[in-house]
Amino acid sequence: MLHLKSDTAARWFEQVDEDLNAVLIDHAHCEKKAAGTALNLMFAYVEDRELCREMTEIVNEELEHFHMVVDLLERRGVRFRRLTPSTYGRKLNDLVRKQEPQRAVDRLLVAGLIEARSCERFNRLADHVDDAELAEFYRSLFESEARHHTTYTRLAKHFAPAEEVTRRLDELAELEAEILAASDDPPRMHS
Amino acid sequence: MLHLKSDTAARWFEQVDEDLNAVLIDHAHCEKKAAGTALNLMFAYVEDRELCREMTEIVNEELEHFHMVVDLLERRGVRFRRLTPSTYGRKLNDLVRKQEPQRAVDRLLVAGLIEARSCERFNRLADHVDDAELAEFYRSLFESEARHHTTYTRLAKHFAPAEEVTRRLDELAELEAEILAASDDPPRMHS
Repeated sequence: MLHLKSDTAARWFEQVDEDLNAVLIDHAHCEKKAAGTALNLMFAYVEDRELCREMTEIVNEELEHFHMVVDLLERRGVRFRRLTPSTYGRKLNDLVRKQEPQRAVDRLLVAGLIEARSCERFNRLADHVDDAELAEFYRSLFESEARHHTTYTRLAKHFAPAEEVTRRLDELAELEAEILAASDDPPRMHS
Repeated sequence: MLHLKSDTAARWFEQVDEDLNAVLIDHAHCEKKAAGTALNLMFAYVEDRELCREMTEIVNEELEHFHMVVDLLERRGVRFRRLTPSTYGRKLNDLVRKQEPQRAVDRLLVAGLIEARSCERFNRLADHVDDAELAEFYRSLFESEARHHTTYTRLAKHFAPAEEVTRRLDELAELEAEILAASDDPPRMHS
């Protein structure tokens, strides 16, 4: 369902144990960036009514999640601050083809893959963390990330035939797994 | 309350009568841009909790307005399309000082002045247009634009003393009136 080509490696869970607060702070930044991505897609393809409606919903949900993470940080006494992002998002965005309509397909599929990876990690994190509030929190985010992945993949089909989208998703998912496997970022949501 | 230094001139209402559809299409783009501005401000000053909360609310409201205008266009059989924007926004943004915290003050005040001008024009348009649905629509937007203006002006005071913000608002409002008086843009929301 998530079209991912790898499960998150044990190394990442070691990073989470090493610096959970950095992962949480980065998570807040990721939610904010996800809202920005959805709004940018709406700006770029503003004549597509369905895309605009879906992007609006995603912007609203991601901003809601952003505030949920920041509230959680506050309850845990962790100061929300700027943080160098992982290289994951940039490397994925570098894969986006430059020409339309391929560009639209890739931007939507990349956004969808990031949601899929977050979804996979939230699910695993819920079992991994030794903290009931946090486990419940990660579980609560799982469903919406999965739904966003499905939405992005469906919208990509506005810009190319379904088989072509599926083929490209497969290709990008392989590259996504390679990017994560090669990562030497410090502890982050997508390190 | 709106801190504007001029009333909209008769010339603009002539432009509205000349090409109401262009003004409506541009209005939709303006709502979308207003959402983008609020999200960018949230990104720039993400450590300010109150600002983040207020910007989230503004993003949600502006996107809701965007869809309202696009629905209205659809009901009127007007195709929503790209349109060269007026030079108003760019000219106002050129006034923003480069150094923080002055930059934050100016970005917030400029965003607030654009809301104030929209508010003033919606109010006048509601009386001007010869169409009950449209008049009602403009009236429904009046209150939120006024509220956004107040919010932006209040948030600017997170970055400078109140007297300094008031003085700068006065200065920027003078320049805003000059920009509009000198405009030779085609019919737009802020021509």
